[in-house]
Amino acid sequence: MLNPEKHPLWVFMEQYTPVSLVTWNYIEPCLRCTTVRAGDLILEEGKICRHLYFLEKGLLRFFVVYNGNDVTKYFTDIPYVFTSQKSFVEQIPARESIEALEDSIVWQMNFDDAHRLLVYPEWNVFIRKLVQEVQNFTDEILEAVQTQTVEMRYRTMLEQESALLQRIPLKHIASYLGIAQQSLSRIRKNILKKDGI
Amino acid sequence: MLNPEKHPLWVFMEQYTPVSLVTWNYIEPCLRCTTVRAGDLILEEGKICRHLYFLEKGLLRFFVVYNGNDVTKYFTDIPYVFTSQKSFVEQIPARESIEALEDSIVWQMNFDDAHRLLVYPEWNVFIRKLVQEVQNFTDEILEAVQTQTVEMRYRTMLEQESALLQRIPLKHIASYLGIAQQSLSRIRKNILKKDGI
Repeated sequence: MLNPEKHPLWVFMEQYTPVSLVTWNYIEPCLRCTTVRAGDLILEEGKICRHLYFLEKGLLRFFVVYNGNDVTKYFTDIPYVFTSQKSFVEQIPARESIEALEDSIVWQMNFDDAHRLLVYPEWNVFIRKLVQEVQNFTDEILEAVQTQTVEMRYRTMLEQESALLQRIPLKHIASYLGIAQQSLSRIRKNILKKDGI
Repeated sequence: MLNPEKHPLWVFMEQYTPVSLVTWNYIEPCLRCTTVRAGDLILEEGKICRHLYFLEKGLLRFFVVYNGNDVTKYFTDIPYVFTSQKSFVEQIPARESIEALEDSIVWQMNFDDAHRLLVYPEWNVFIRKLVQEVQNFTDEILEAVQTQTVEMRYRTMLEQESALLQRIPLKHIASYLGIAQQSLSRIRKNILKKDGI
């Protein structure tokens, strides 16, 4: 028998901590593969988030609707483990929604399993490091919003995530930056003019 | 012998998870008590944060200096465990500074001890829940910045944290809200006028 390919979540976990086959064999039966169409919601505001998810393929955005405005909180690209953290951890209704921006492959694990697996040190370390990383990402976005202009933030995205930007509709980039789509178009024209062809 | 009073960190930890005397006896020897004067820095940008801290008394602010502007990221009130998370976890230079706004009592634990203690399930659960809570706080601030006007955010602070606001110099509240102190004064006058005497 050929050595089967490692599950993409196993490969992802090993970026954080080594995971033995023994531990993986406890994790794998808890996973269920689902497909989500572009435009579909994985989680809707007001519902309780009952799963921890792994995004194998596709692209997501987290958003809230505030006074009728759709505001993008952040984007999640592959491969990554995600959930609506407060809703999932406390099992309370989510204040945010999660939308697939592309046809996506999403593995899900229910709350009880994710919690029960914490007795295994490798899963425990993985979850702790992951939550710390998410905290660092959130903190970086907050710091950028607090200290930089919208044009500076957009320039950073262009420099660091240009391939990702190509995959996101302009209206969502604008709502992530907290501006109208027309204002983003002006900023893009300005940058083109300043930086030349 | 009288039953000695529980250490304030032990009391704090038990808000998250029960902590046995056996486990506490592993934690306590790792703590060192320090006092910090109002205006002193507990951590300076560019230095590596080598400790996990517990604030027993006092008040702190986290801030960054960006293009010559001092921007307040958040405030930490008692009782709370804090550190410069990315710097501490990865042992890399911090991008932020931590300043005592009041004379403070701070317990510190070094990186190796904080890490070594993770083998004890009660410490492990405490740290995981705490990091999740910090992530939730950061996410809430980010969402407020992304969706609300400065006046709305200031009103929320007035409603939910009015006692804390009294202890913070106006210039730091203004830099937390991302505006000049004069703009905050105008907002405060507006609110007084709208809400009456």
